[in-house]
Amino acid sequence: MEITFLGTGAGIPSTKRNVSSAALRLDSGDTWLFDCGEATQHQILSASITLSKITKIFITHLHGDHIFGLPGLLGSRSFQGGQSELVIYGPKGIKSFLETALRVSNTHLRYPLRIEEIEDGIELNEKGFTIRTGLLEHGIESYGYRVEEDEKPGTLHADKLMQLGVKPGPIYKKLKDGESIELDGHIIRPTDVIGPAIKGRCVVICGDTRYSNRAVDLAKGADLLVHEATFSQDKQTLAHDYYHSTTVEAARVANRAEVSWLIVNHISSRYQDEDERQLLNEARAVYPNTDIAFDQMTFQIPLKKTGSI
Amino acid sequence: MEITFLGTGAGIPSTKRNVSSAALRLDSGDTWLFDCGEATQHQILSASITLSKITKIFITHLHGDHIFGLPGLLGSRSFQGGQSELVIYGPKGIKSFLETALRVSNTHLRYPLRIEEIEDGIELNEKGFTIRTGLLEHGIESYGYRVEEDEKPGTLHADKLMQLGVKPGPIYKKLKDGESIELDGHIIRPTDVIGPAIKGRCVVICGDTRYSNRAVDLAKGADLLVHEATFSQDKQTLAHDYYHSTTVEAARVANRAEVSWLIVNHISSRYQDEDERQLLNEARAVYPNTDIAFDQMTFQIPLKKTGSI
Ligand SMILES: [Zn+2]
Ligand SMILES: [Zn+2]
Repeated sequence: MEITFLGTGAGIPSTKRNVSSAALRLDSGDTWLFDCGEATQHQILSASITLSKITKIFITHLHGDHIFGLPGLLGSRSFQGGQSELVIYGPKGIKSFLETALRVSNTHLRYPLRIEEIEDGIELNEKGFTIRTGLLEHGIESYGYRVEEDEKPGTLHADKLMQLGVKPGPIYKKLKDGESIELDGHIIRPTDVIGPAIKGRCVVICGDTRYSNRAVDLAKGADLLVHEATFSQDKQTLAHDYYHSTTVEAARVANRAEVSWLIVNHISSRYQDEDERQLLNEARAVYPNTDIAFDQMTFQIPLKKTGSI
Repeated sequence: MEITFLGTGAGIPSTKRNVSSAALRLDSGDTWLFDCGEATQHQILSASITLSKITKIFITHLHGDHIFGLPGLLGSRSFQGGQSELVIYGPKGIKSFLETALRVSNTHLRYPLRIEEIEDGIELNEKGFTIRTGLLEHGIESYGYRVEEDEKPGTLHADKLMQLGVKPGPIYKKLKDGESIELDGHIIRPTDVIGPAIKGRCVVICGDTRYSNRAVDLAKGADLLVHEATFSQDKQTLAHDYYHSTTVEAARVANRAEVSWLIVNHISSRYQDEDERQLLNEARAVYPNTDIAFDQMTFQIPLKKTGSI
């Protein structure tokens, strides 16, 4: 599983940071997009992402810098031969926006499109994942998505099985399914030959928001939290007034939610290269395991290490 | 007057050609945009165009690759402090598209926006210009715009006036206004000291279309015709079926309309660098004074030379 940041700027595009979008690539190869600002499809041209592999798009909120790339991306996905269903989740209004854009532009998609308007605290079940929505504080409805991967069964230890004289075949399956077996008068239990279950990963991606305890609740214990940090520490009042967060506020959310890793994004274009090192330092002073996202950066999200038997 | 091509590709963006937009910069400094595909505002970041100087946007037709950049550009123009009125002309439907996008995204523009839905054969009067619309053939309503600059009064020849002993002052204004004057018993007529009127330039920018006699009519005698050439000469049937033109068809329009200059754009992404030389040659074989547009190319549109007195 890996996350690629396609747009990490705030409000308007700059030559360095495009408006918001991030792509979560699953182990299955499917890609889930989070937000789709204008020119997300252009950013994808330079990334190793295929439009037809995008199967879900999660919209955090309806500000233009998070949705104006949707109609074009939908059209291009069709133009390039995408045929599999695409599901878009987003706040109320997303359906009317997309339906009007597609109708007026006479865009006929050659794949099924499903648009689901979300609310606070709902649970979405996708193959191998559970996604929960959490309302944040951004003046308009803005959500975070908590993506939890299902637990995976532990690994069958082939060496150990060989030692015990168990040959590959239906017995393997019995053990995997949790049944004990008898072999030459010995009982072999699944726990003797199968490692512990592999915990699923948990990634929380927040939309624009002020510092909010709702974000803390949503992010509780996550492996990765992606949180906006539009402003530097000294702009706390400005951030509050405009329903955005500072670097330190993002770090405080990570701290209180006891996540393992924080990536900040949605950086105001007022900050230049030198400033960005400073932004990162501000966050790290509060929550050390912080990274700052740049456009086209990809971060691996590793499976959690588990003890071996 | 100059024209900058911001997007010269067809249908979907490629790394080399963005979707459609061209900017006509007037001598006054005002800029008129023709079409506004997705990421036009991004292209503008690398051009010497200021969003606040864009005062009119002319939309040829409502296909996504010609309009999906509008909502973002409108928002950014406001964000960057644009306060002057912006007028958008386009086919029926443009109003509903924009109003929905701005409403859903909660975009509040800090300047007056006027949206005018056009029809075939109407005349728009803008300071110093007359613009006429002409319906083309593209399956959906698609227009060309004929932009005619008003004739400008000839230059007052200061040397000649000095020779005749006329001093700068109210007499200059009388002559400019077409009145003859008497000085020391001599009659001085305006034509003695003012050059011939300077003819206005005429630029015709067509939206997507098949070969069409309507385009010929609209472009009659223009100084510059911008016409699509989505396909090469050998794809004539394909072009016809998809309501697009070939290189040769664009050149034929230029020829029949007896324009002075043709620039082709809206080039399919199937053509690579080597092919594009070939596309140009095909058009030039029919109409020699042809150029092919690339993104970020600017062409000067000079005043017509007039005889001096
Ligand atoms: Zn926002
Ligand atoms: Zn078209």
